[in-house]
Amino acid sequence: MASIRNILKNSRSFKDGNFFLELKKILGFKPLSESFYEKAFTHRSMNIKDKKGNPINYERLEFVGDAMLSSVIAAYLFEQVPHGDEGYLTKMRSKVVSREHLNELGKELDLIKLVKSRIPVSNFGNNIHGNLFEALVGAIYLDRGYKMCEKFIFKRVINPHVDIETLEGKVISYKSLLIEWCQKEKNTFNYDVYEDTGKDKLKHFSVRLSVNDKVVAKARATSKKKAEEKASKRAFFAFQKQITKFI
Amino acid sequence: MASIRNILKNSRSFKDGNFFLELKKILGFKPLSESFYEKAFTHRSMNIKDKKGNPINYERLEFVGDAMLSSVIAAYLFEQVPHGDEGYLTKMRSKVVSREHLNELGKELDLIKLVKSRIPVSNFGNNIHGNLFEALVGAIYLDRGYKMCEKFIFKRVINPHVDIETLEGKVISYKSLLIEWCQKEKNTFNYDVYEDTGKDKLKHFSVRLSVNDKVVAKARATSKKKAEEKASKRAFFAFQKQITKFI
Repeated sequence: MASIRNILKNSRSFKDGNFFLELKKILGFKPLSESFYEKAFTHRSMNIKDKKGNPINYERLEFVGDAMLSSVIAAYLFEQVPHGDEGYLTKMRSKVVSREHLNELGKELDLIKLVKSRIPVSNFGNNIHGNLFEALVGAIYLDRGYKMCEKFIFKRVINPHVDIETLEGKVISYKSLLIEWCQKEKNTFNYDVYEDTGKDKLKHFSVRLSVNDKVVAKARATSKKKAEEKASKRAFFAFQKQITKFI
Repeated sequence: MASIRNILKNSRSFKDGNFFLELKKILGFKPLSESFYEKAFTHRSMNIKDKKGNPINYERLEFVGDAMLSSVIAAYLFEQVPHGDEGYLTKMRSKVVSREHLNELGKELDLIKLVKSRIPVSNFGNNIHGNLFEALVGAIYLDRGYKMCEKFIFKRVINPHVDIETLEGKVISYKSLLIEWCQKEKNTFNYDVYEDTGKDKLKHFSVRLSVNDKVVAKARATSKKKAEEKASKRAFFAFQKQITKFI
């Protein structure tokens, strides 16, 4: 792998030291074998090959990351949903690892800023976020093994985002859930909605949701209702522990 | 889980002690938490439920086992097939974990003899073998963790059965491969084919394949050619290490 690293090190993003600094923040631990992560952020347009002519980019790592996500979440759901049969568990898992959700996870970590590519980042479709997330999970497995990979998936996917009640479709509206919780806990809340179309062709609205006079979530969407629901969902995850107790 | 164990222990197959003796032979290690394995061999027809009314049988464990098989084999193929892209690796994996192959694995270990069911074993379809195998892998993961589960998959699936050359479709005929190898290594070989229709409606043939005057594989099929190929494939796996060197 030494030769690959030399090639990659000559690039801006891996050479200037910021790459591993940023990466460490995302991972929460120190990588042992840096080459896996360099690969996880190399787009095929770089056209880099190893000695045997095999392409070096993140695509193959997605295959490994996807499998690890599936396993960790399978084991988690098996324990958490004792009444669910095989088919039900499979359906729940597919909600967690949906393309849409993986894209959100990648965006949240802003993985795209670390990618090395000859194509401008703005030309990528939305799926690059999820693909980079899968590749990163694959790199973690290959670098540090299953336990560490599982830990990362708990930290970045399960703890902040997987709520069994929600997956089971019991939450119909995050807004009403949040209001109910605020009322019960005697918290004040306020949805500050304003038009925020900007350069978009469609009319857009933004919302600032405050709880006890502190902004806890922001969101933007094409209708007031959608923006409020989105902000409520974000706030829900911020207060998840407290709210879940309440449900 | 104590109550489940008590219920299950009252059954013939778990009570007489043979169950854990046989199981240990299959696993190659001592189970820590026996209840996972009892569950892995309990058919839904037993109609056993836990305190909360959730059914206890091997079906949910299949979900976990399937995920673990997918992960271990994904990581293995990632390393072994460096030229394969995501799609190619996915295709190769699906050959390894095909329903047919899983059924063969379950049959090989004769898992069905350990199953507890109110339905006669002869009434089960062919898929029970693969289902039990998946459930067993799931039980191993839950009992002993990923590393041990990986070890088991290497011992029972990858080492004896996964041949990259074969998966890549490079072996067109096992018979010609075997003959070529025998000739090169100066081994004598003999295909002893005879009609063996028995009670079947269709004509069947059996074959005994000997290498150096020792029977190394037997097979039965609806044509001489098919029976010979089947026996050759079995012999191939028996001599895999030697033959792979030769390819």
